[in-house]
Amino acid sequence: MIQKLPVIGVPLGDPAGIGPEIAIKAAMLETVQEIAHVKLIGHRELFAHVQKQLSVSLDGLDIHYVENSNLGDFEYGKIQVNCGKAAYDYIYEATNLAKSNIIDAIATTPINKESLRAANINTIGHTELLGEFTGCHDLMTLFQTNKLQVFFLTRHLSLLDACKVITYDRVLNGIIDTYKSMKLLGTISPIPFAVAGLNPHNGEHGLFGSEEENFIRPAVIKAQEMGIPVVGPIPADSVFYQARTGKYSAVLSLYHDQGHIATKTYDFEKTISLTLGMPFLRTSVDHGTAFDIAGKGIAQHVSMEQAIITAAKYARDYKINYPDFINFTM
Amino acid sequence: MIQKLPVIGVPLGDPAGIGPEIAIKAAMLETVQEIAHVKLIGHRELFAHVQKQLSVSLDGLDIHYVENSNLGDFEYGKIQVNCGKAAYDYIYEATNLAKSNIIDAIATTPINKESLRAANINTIGHTELLGEFTGCHDLMTLFQTNKLQVFFLTRHLSLLDACKVITYDRVLNGIIDTYKSMKLLGTISPIPFAVAGLNPHNGEHGLFGSEEENFIRPAVIKAQEMGIPVVGPIPADSVFYQARTGKYSAVLSLYHDQGHIATKTYDFEKTISLTLGMPFLRTSVDHGTAFDIAGKGIAQHVSMEQAIITAAKYARDYKINYPDFINFTM
Repeated sequence: MIQKLPVIGVPLGDPAGIGPEIAIKAAMLETVQEIAHVKLIGHRELFAHVQKQLSVSLDGLDIHYVENSNLGDFEYGKIQVNCGKAAYDYIYEATNLAKSNIIDAIATTPINKESLRAANINTIGHTELLGEFTGCHDLMTLFQTNKLQVFFLTRHLSLLDACKVITYDRVLNGIIDTYKSMKLLGTISPIPFAVAGLNPHNGEHGLFGSEEENFIRPAVIKAQEMGIPVVGPIPADSVFYQARTGKYSAVLSLYHDQGHIATKTYDFEKTISLTLGMPFLRTSVDHGTAFDIAGKGIAQHVSMEQAIITAAKYARDYKINYPDFINFTM
Repeated sequence: MIQKLPVIGVPLGDPAGIGPEIAIKAAMLETVQEIAHVKLIGHRELFAHVQKQLSVSLDGLDIHYVENSNLGDFEYGKIQVNCGKAAYDYIYEATNLAKSNIIDAIATTPINKESLRAANINTIGHTELLGEFTGCHDLMTLFQTNKLQVFFLTRHLSLLDACKVITYDRVLNGIIDTYKSMKLLGTISPIPFAVAGLNPHNGEHGLFGSEEENFIRPAVIKAQEMGIPVVGPIPADSVFYQARTGKYSAVLSLYHDQGHIATKTYDFEKTISLTLGMPFLRTSVDHGTAFDIAGKGIAQHVSMEQAIITAAKYARDYKINYPDFINFTM
């Protein structure tokens, strides 16, 4: 019996950035073609442009052309109204293909906030756009670098505010969401996941900070009583290394930089992000449009490669597990 | 002309921990003997004990026996009064040898806070003990993992307090201290060092946090005007990776975990710490006494090896540069 490969939709992103280049380069890789059927999504004229610019052949690539709008002229490395609009159109089209089950998951390339704004699109970023298109607003982010998996309790808050919102309820809910997300991906294992501490050395028994004793430890104990395989708080300066080397199956990071410093210092190129909570999985490169090197044929496609491979790895289990995720109760 | 190797004193640390084992193992390494003359410091009976326990020969090792006290019986992996006292004695003796120029620098092994406390020594740790013994209390910590060098603006504060003490003066003083420290080590280069940001994405123009615009950036600009090769703030999730790959010569981390997560997730085994500001350099392994594996002959000595090699690398330049460091003015 031949098992068809999962179909991963890749919208080309902002035409003026490195998105189209890395998407096409990654789609041609053997490592990618072994595990995924890639469907590239963009304007016909953009593909023609990149083909000429990079002197590559598009033979054998599966392309979904966006036909209901035109791109027109554009320049690499510039914020342009038509490029912001195009990036938006590609994501919209990808979402529709996913909703119709024509693709199984989406792996996105970089878009540019300023270009979106120039095109009068004021949604902050990919996650928010996808939330709009799918009507799913309670989305979870997971960072992955090789085997290190990091979930986030908070993200775009000042560090001071991130400290202030650490409460028993918030931590407990974060643990439950992490558990749900791991079930959705099919990555629950007998190895527990860990909640990071907030203060240096977990606050050294209250000597410098008491969130660990007051909120985090009680929330972990409650979650354990509920049957969730979780431990913590584990001091933040060792938890990521220990997860990297197999002691924990994942880490729940309490603030943005805690998890971002860990994953990106470890391996910047291979860090990708996953968005969980929509009916289909979305993965993404974790770098920007890199306007300074766009159109030069020198962009690295390692992160794009990882994003597609990861989408392919989880896409089907994700769709199978999704109904349980929606109906999840503890 | 034969250049004598720098002499690195290694106090054995808490006898009940892995310190004696890793010190002796590291002192025997060719990589160490090529660059350093190691002088091990401890009780005669402890050396005899380890020799028997690990079935190693101490032939060819330079040992300074601590004679004015005895160790007596001890057990591995336990908090014991005599072990706390011994660890203290070894550091005291090492400091005296350094003051008398018999050794050029010190590389320390782990001590145990609880054992020290049991022995009625209430000084928090190595840095504080060394501060007492030398009368130098304005000491600077530097973490080093392979080529990544990280200084710290604050350390043992709760994360909330660490956020609150970020001011223009404190950041400017931290930059000056970092500059002085790099001059002391002889590591100033044309490549600037970087100050990390505090908030996610540097606060995204004040959207989540304004310390970058209000305090950090003005302090960096002032320091640049003073002639210091510094840049920043650089978002914390990319600055460490960029320093690792050569874009910055070092990073000034704003809080404990910011720099600790970066160095330890990158390479836990090879992370060592340097203490700067005394008349001699001190390096240290960055792990604890590991009571659970003490006396079993299975402790890793990679960090100890790095600590000795690093001490040897900088010891002489450090001593030459020290008078300038003391008399430093901008």
